[in-house]
Amino acid sequence: MPIAVLQKSSCSVARSLSILGERWTLLILRVALEGETRFEVFRESLGMAPDVLSDRLNTLVEYGVMTKEAYQEPGSRTRYEYHLTEAGRELHVVIGGLQQWGDDHMPWDDGPTVVRQSRKTGRPVRVAFVDERGREIPLDQVETLHTAAYPA
Amino acid sequence: MPIAVLQKSSCSVARSLSILGERWTLLILRVALEGETRFEVFRESLGMAPDVLSDRLNTLVEYGVMTKEAYQEPGSRTRYEYHLTEAGRELHVVIGGLQQWGDDHMPWDDGPTVVRQSRKTGRPVRVAFVDERGREIPLDQVETLHTAAYPA
Repeated sequence: MPIAVLQKSSCSVARSLSILGERWTLLILRVALEGETRFEVFRESLGMAPDVLSDRLNTLVEYGVMTKEAYQEPGSRTRYEYHLTEAGRELHVVIGGLQQWGDDHMPWDDGPTVVRQSRKTGRPVRVAFVDERGREIPLDQVETLHTAAYPA
Repeated sequence: MPIAVLQKSSCSVARSLSILGERWTLLILRVALEGETRFEVFRESLGMAPDVLSDRLNTLVEYGVMTKEAYQEPGSRTRYEYHLTEAGRELHVVIGGLQQWGDDHMPWDDGPTVVRQSRKTGRPVRVAFVDERGREIPLDQVETLHTAAYPA
């Protein structure tokens, strides 16, 4: 299913995956959400081939998930940093959801490698559904409805 | 990056993607979370090749995301239904997160095809971070920390 086809889908999951669904892309976002910005850090952290990393980062820049900025350290050639945009930061719930599912259902022997907490209280946070007042709605109370836009 | 490598990763996002990251799998889960269970419905809804659908469903069954149950209608051959397990239903936040991101940042002309609401109040829900009391923690207050298990 080529990316172009997914982008034209009425399904918003498919449209999101047209940008995010390539192998490596969600892992790059995981590292970016940990605060990393530099090409070399992504490459070393994920053990990726530079050409694939470059391709994935360019896609994320093209679609407004990241911005690309040149920087230069004294005596070095120009390098690039990649910063999440607001849209990119909103993907934190997707990455957080994948992370908690992996930790809950496919645990690592040494425990989670990453935890998330409130910067204000230091208390753990997790991903859930909330109503418009920001109160959690348990999973079994969430229902999914098709709108008139749903394909026949 | 073959599935087996991802499963052995200390990164829980990578482990989750070892099961969920194949093309089509998250779309199958989207349809399952809408309440569909039948092979033919998945196939028609997603326009998938039966052999690929069968392969993805078998992986989901193998890893405890779905169960496979035979059923038979009078005069028909045995067919199969696929039901989400508790672990599978927990992926609702991941699918919901991808859906709201797609609707927010790559909107469809006719509007969202699917909406989520509280079964009790009929009011819209969205995916967010919450603390242990189920109160929303805004994205900019969520911080990610490496634990001692994080690879050096």
